Amino acid sequence: MAQTNDDNIARLIKLIKGIEVAMLTTCESDGTLHSRPMATQKTDFDGYLWFFTRAGSHKVEEIEREHHVNVSYADPSNQRYVSVSGLARLVRDRSRIDELWDPGYTTWFPEGKDDADLALLRITVQRAEYWEGPSSKVINFG
Amino acid sequence: MAQTNDDNIARLIKLIKGIEVAMLTTCESDGTLHSRPMATQKTDFDGYLWFFTRAGSHKVEEIEREHHVNVSYADPSNQRYVSVSGLARLVRDRSRIDELWDPGYTTWFPEGKDDADLALLRITVQRAEYWEGPSSKVINFG
Repeated sequence: MAQTNDDNIARLIKLIKGIEVAMLTTCESDGTLHSRPMATQKTDFDGYLWFFTRAGSHKVEEIEREHHVNVSYADPSNQRYVSVSGLARLVRDRSRIDELWDPGYTTWFPEGKDDADLALLRITVQRAEYWEGPSSKVINFG
Repeated sequence: MAQTNDDNIARLIKLIKGIEVAMLTTCESDGTLHSRPMATQKTDFDGYLWFFTRAGSHKVEEIEREHHVNVSYADPSNQRYVSVSGLARLVRDRSRIDELWDPGYTTWFPEGKDDADLALLRITVQRAEYWEGPSSKVINFG
């Protein structure tokens, strides 16, 4: 039976819940793949993944040139690993920042949510793949 | 003072030690970035990262087309995250397979080390970046 997009969203919410840091991989202009830890959102996944970023950071330059990114979630204690392939865009939206902000993010953004350089990365999820053992399952997003 | 390559290797050994699974990100022909968990080597890093793989797997196709890969190591309990940028090649070398094989790999390769499709991915490390807090440090490999 075909899965609806709502079913897929519910599955991905469950898979990434509780994982506080994901690795975001981007592609540089010479083809080098580069990753960095990103604090995951405190709110449930709604079809987009949201990450706080500095608008002036190097990864934003990379993303504006090449939108394809990968977000990987690792939960070694439960042997759960998730790969999310998607497209990233920089979003400067004060109301969305207010909505998604959590005081825990001050570890990464000590100036808090009123920092003028604070922005969001919005990842449109195209495909998720996950492992809870040697074989994987794929979730395609419409 | 300039770091020698031996110093850099020693630093990376220390950073990834004890992390049993890394996420390997590759680039597909349409630009999609895709990652999957990989069992890390049981022997110390010697300038190359080595992973067991099936020669006939989809990731090998991706790597033969585009050698740039990223290997990310996450140790959430110690808030340690490492990004390794490098170039991957498939290596079919029975003596190297014998040398690097560990019985623990049968979880991933149930047919064991004599499986005819078993091969190695050898990653030439170009740059490592690591976080043990909000800011990162870079290690460049010569």
